[in-house]
Amino acid sequence: MIHLACFFGGVGQHQAAWRRTTSRAEEASALPLHADLAACAERGLFDALFVADGLYLDRLRMAREPMGLFEPITMLSAMAARTNQIGLVGSVSTTFSEPYNVARQLAALDQLSAGRAGWNIVTSSGGAENFGDAPLPSHRERYRRAAEFVAAVVGLWDSWDDDAIVLDRAGGLYADPDRIHPIDFAGEYVSVAGPLNLPRSPQGRPVLAQAGSSDDGRRFAAAHAELVFTAQQTAEGSLAFTRDVKARASAVGRDPQQIKVLAGVCPFIGSTEAEAHAALAELGRLTDLEMGLAQLGQQLGGIEIASLELDAPIPGELLPEVSAVQGRQSRYALFRQLATEERWTLRQLVDMEVASTGHWLIVGTPEQVAGQLAERYLTGACDGYVVMPPYLPESLALFVEHVVPLLQTRGLYRQEYAGATLRDHLGLTRPASALKETTGG
Amino acid sequence: MIHLACFFGGVGQHQAAWRRTTSRAEEASALPLHADLAACAERGLFDALFVADGLYLDRLRMAREPMGLFEPITMLSAMAARTNQIGLVGSVSTTFSEPYNVARQLAALDQLSAGRAGWNIVTSSGGAENFGDAPLPSHRERYRRAAEFVAAVVGLWDSWDDDAIVLDRAGGLYADPDRIHPIDFAGEYVSVAGPLNLPRSPQGRPVLAQAGSSDDGRRFAAAHAELVFTAQQTAEGSLAFTRDVKARASAVGRDPQQIKVLAGVCPFIGSTEAEAHAALAELGRLTDLEMGLAQLGQQLGGIEIASLELDAPIPGELLPEVSAVQGRQSRYALFRQLATEERWTLRQLVDMEVASTGHWLIVGTPEQVAGQLAERYLTGACDGYVVMPPYLPESLALFVEHVVPLLQTRGLYRQEYAGATLRDHLGLTRPASALKETTGG
Repeated sequence: MIHLACFFGGVGQHQAAWRRTTSRAEEASALPLHADLAACAERGLFDALFVADGLYLDRLRMAREPMGLFEPITMLSAMAARTNQIGLVGSVSTTFSEPYNVARQLAALDQLSAGRAGWNIVTSSGGAENFGDAPLPSHRERYRRAAEFVAAVVGLWDSWDDDAIVLDRAGGLYADPDRIHPIDFAGEYVSVAGPLNLPRSPQGRPVLAQAGSSDDGRRFAAAHAELVFTAQQTAEGSLAFTRDVKARASAVGRDPQQIKVLAGVCPFIGSTEAEAHAALAELGRLTDLEMGLAQLGQQLGGIEIASLELDAPIPGELLPEVSAVQGRQSRYALFRQLATEERWTLRQLVDMEVASTGHWLIVGTPEQVAGQLAERYLTGACDGYVVMPPYLPESLALFVEHVVPLLQTRGLYRQEYAGATLRDHLGLTRPASALKETTGG
Repeated sequence: MIHLACFFGGVGQHQAAWRRTTSRAEEASALPLHADLAACAERGLFDALFVADGLYLDRLRMAREPMGLFEPITMLSAMAARTNQIGLVGSVSTTFSEPYNVARQLAALDQLSAGRAGWNIVTSSGGAENFGDAPLPSHRERYRRAAEFVAAVVGLWDSWDDDAIVLDRAGGLYADPDRIHPIDFAGEYVSVAGPLNLPRSPQGRPVLAQAGSSDDGRRFAAAHAELVFTAQQTAEGSLAFTRDVKARASAVGRDPQQIKVLAGVCPFIGSTEAEAHAALAELGRLTDLEMGLAQLGQQLGGIEIASLELDAPIPGELLPEVSAVQGRQSRYALFRQLATEERWTLRQLVDMEVASTGHWLIVGTPEQVAGQLAERYLTGACDGYVVMPPYLPESLALFVEHVVPLLQTRGLYRQEYAGATLRDHLGLTRPASALKETTGG
């Protein structure tokens, strides 16, 4: 079965989506829009909502589009109260947060949603200036801290045995202190005594997700992630990525079935192919080229591209090696490959950036969209998709009303939610407490 | 008009409340119980829900009662989605959090609730072991960091002018970057560049609340707080406290009307006085004396009281000066005063601790409860109360159904919500952006 997450936040993936008259951009940080979108995604039986995040404001970009106007934990907690079954996955940084606070908030989200929480572990490629005097740690160092951070958070989630709450009213014993354990985690970057001040959550642990596809990112995913989000242009690239991550997981002793790889996809859907292309073209006309160039420059590690020829490939000597980039390495690698190997023109790269920020773009009828999603999935290129609706609310409604039924007809997608938790939706097992095992408790 | 906040969390203020068969203690960290309680408080036209917090688990105490089983930001965000008018005030620590994260989450709560958020600023008297290797900073140092922290958070809340979002679809301008300002806050404890990645919130700033009543706490409240929670046994003490805080605010140039002082109260309500006393006595019989002694020992700064005579006052030489206590100074001072000046016995102090943790206890009929609340309020001893229902869900329902109408009949309490935001409920003005003023923007 295809797994689907719904990219959640803002008013659509396309840079110009907010300029459509129906965009509801006025509500970009308010509850009603997001409650409606979450309800629509739940009607579409999505496994989860997925919220990205950033810890700083890009003032230039902010001028041209509403970006990151909400905060994942608060929004997902509100959505927990407005939905009943869909999973709730949010990005939280390991670089600029405290593990005790993060463990608590995600465990609480799992409690409030009765087992629907997931944590997209991010190491943050910017925002250091909002968190003290120190510069952004290097890519490698961020991942080293992340590994400790995750170990501490998982330890806190396991610090109460599943049966720690006794609730013996007559005897006056609420919880058995012998079933609540300190974790005494002392690392190089992170020290936490524990235990957590919340009982073990319905899923045991919220689902661990990860979205970096760099070498550090893949190693991290293989070790920790249960859900991996990736940007892949081609079926071949997606297949190679998925095989690599699962092989790495096997190599460290994990069951590769317990890692689900979801690839981002931006579907422009029309009742005819022409109508779908017209929707893309309309947004293209509303696009701010200067802004698109600035965005692409960021994806390319900050190189100066504004003065380059638009309808020619970027000279290869301007593009540094992937390992030299300290920001989002995997996305840089994707664009660099399109520029150098596929010889895309600068204009083509900008169009891609503003429309899908490097994710797979599909333009067509519901049959075509469903067909392409099914075809790639059936090759084993991924376990499903992160659907990034290009313009909201329409693109999500079109997908739910017209594409989902076709996937169902083909027997590739659920007819109803079979279980109650995000782990149930994804086919992930509920983990036993590692702490309980090691203490023999 | 009397202002009322509803102490929110757990299953009742009395240590033994969970042992009642109707306590719903099974749901202590789940959504349904809290949604029901919030709805009840909203029917009672409370100004706000108020959530306390702690950043560690007291395993001994946890064994005997469900404590702190949820996290304020997530719970209040969920309540924002389940309520329409009641304010949402939560404790967040300035000692163990990052100002950018806190500013974001509270601003987001204000957005999601359409202007109902408040921040109870706490400096945390425990939990250091969950946040690295360093010991808990001293009382004085925590307050110094808190002052910087609040300045940074307020700066971030003000970093977008109210009119920064232009939303010019035709012209392609979403926000005016000239109306979004960095804050470049560089203090001794805290450095934040800004701006925030959220627009200015509906209330301009969430309401600032504060609950420490020590000398440091009062100075802090006078400088920053718009809402002050305090534990006061007597009308005289409450009046002196309220006058002092408001005088201190005046002395630093603030309008004393813009600080509302709410005193904690635990109302045991019965259809007869005997029935109310029976409810208190029933919980007394269910109380764990050993636990009560341990709790009281904590309130008294950690002194050893388990071996003392129960029915005699605590020897005064065991009780250090208030200024020597590094934990919750003001609560210590309250208990110390009862022990030394009022000559309460150890047993009386324990009974008080388990029933109300030092807050004012009223036992009686709805008429008696309403009468005492009105009488103290009318002396000017406070602007209202934090109602801490001793056993849930019953105590809250009794208050809403029987006490609120009596206060309304006397003309001392609203008949309906007059405004939409927490500031409206409390009669607090919406602050202008300090940043905009200083930049002349």
